[in-house]
Amino acid sequence: MNILPKPVSRLIESFEKLPGVGPKTAQRLAFYLLHVPDRDLENFAHNLTSLKSETVLCEICKNVAEMSPCSLCSDTGRDKSIICVVEQPMDVISIEKTNKFSGLYHVLHGSIDPLNNIGPDEIYIDTLISRIKHSLAVREVIFALNPNMIGEATALYIQKKIRENDVHAKENAITITRLAHGLPMGGDIEYADEITLGRALDGRKGL
Amino acid sequence: MNILPKPVSRLIESFEKLPGVGPKTAQRLAFYLLHVPDRDLENFAHNLTSLKSETVLCEICKNVAEMSPCSLCSDTGRDKSIICVVEQPMDVISIEKTNKFSGLYHVLHGSIDPLNNIGPDEIYIDTLISRIKHSLAVREVIFALNPNMIGEATALYIQKKIRENDVHAKENAITITRLAHGLPMGGDIEYADEITLGRALDGRKGL
Repeated sequence: MNILPKPVSRLIESFEKLPGVGPKTAQRLAFYLLHVPDRDLENFAHNLTSLKSETVLCEICKNVAEMSPCSLCSDTGRDKSIICVVEQPMDVISIEKTNKFSGLYHVLHGSIDPLNNIGPDEIYIDTLISRIKHSLAVREVIFALNPNMIGEATALYIQKKIRENDVHAKENAITITRLAHGLPMGGDIEYADEITLGRALDGRKGL
Repeated sequence: MNILPKPVSRLIESFEKLPGVGPKTAQRLAFYLLHVPDRDLENFAHNLTSLKSETVLCEICKNVAEMSPCSLCSDTGRDKSIICVVEQPMDVISIEKTNKFSGLYHVLHGSIDPLNNIGPDEIYIDTLISRIKHSLAVREVIFALNPNMIGEATALYIQKKIRENDVHAKENAITITRLAHGLPMGGDIEYADEITLGRALDGRKGL
């Protein structure tokens, strides 16, 4: 006999589907919500349903937004000559928080990952290429993809595509860059892995 | 300018209110749900609203249930002479999982905690006392409260109340017990705190 009331076990199942939430945490969250005012629960439920119904993907940068074009793409104050290519909408927020970037973004919604059946057509590479092709304003593309194998492979693939489609004369070609690799701030050289340390050496800077 | 779309930041706020969920986790969960099918989101939302609308507190044991009396209280196969007093509905599940208890439960929904303004009237002590008073079948009350100061204080208070209201003759009084304290299984004597070790010594058993 299952002693958990069905409404509780159903909610536990919903929580268990979230990443990083195990059976114990899901149970704790469901029982916690039993003590929460009805109003808050309804609010939570409303926020879940409106998450997708009230957001769209920006037609230009493919970021999640309230309207299309998004507030960043339609902001006349931003530098339209630089596009920063990221994997996920969350990456945009991380980069915005640095206050070091005033260009535009392009969200791929993933990276090329053959092992998980994600090819170049499953992510927004085509829209990036046609975006670059149709705007002569673009002068630089920065890859801010995750520093791992699939991130670097994706950057390589897109770089090739951009070069193939670059309408500029050779001496005026689009600059393609990637974020610097090196030691993370607050890190410890002793514990840095050899690849990071190798890249930090390669990328050393004059003082 | 807030670059997060409102529907996303609203959901992040909802997640942040959950215990053990910080801003980073809340953000991760909200962005994860952007990739989930609409159907699953609606299901999740429905499970949240039905959590309280489709559950009741059992009129007898105050456990969360689909109907009142709950399936445990109305189960004729259970031993009605023993009541196990617990703090939370989750504790019922933990004890049921041991398969060592076939009596009934009583859920207090908290413990007496003056520092947090929770007095004896804020939790279901009265219902427990009247339950014992009106059922001559009850022969034993087991306290399965958390082994900390407020749990022990609550047990002491309820014990006194039960004694005051016990309608049985003195030689036939209700037995009041608590769970054993001692070393947790798989634990290490070296790392056991002195109170636990002291209680383990006090409660030693003949082999």
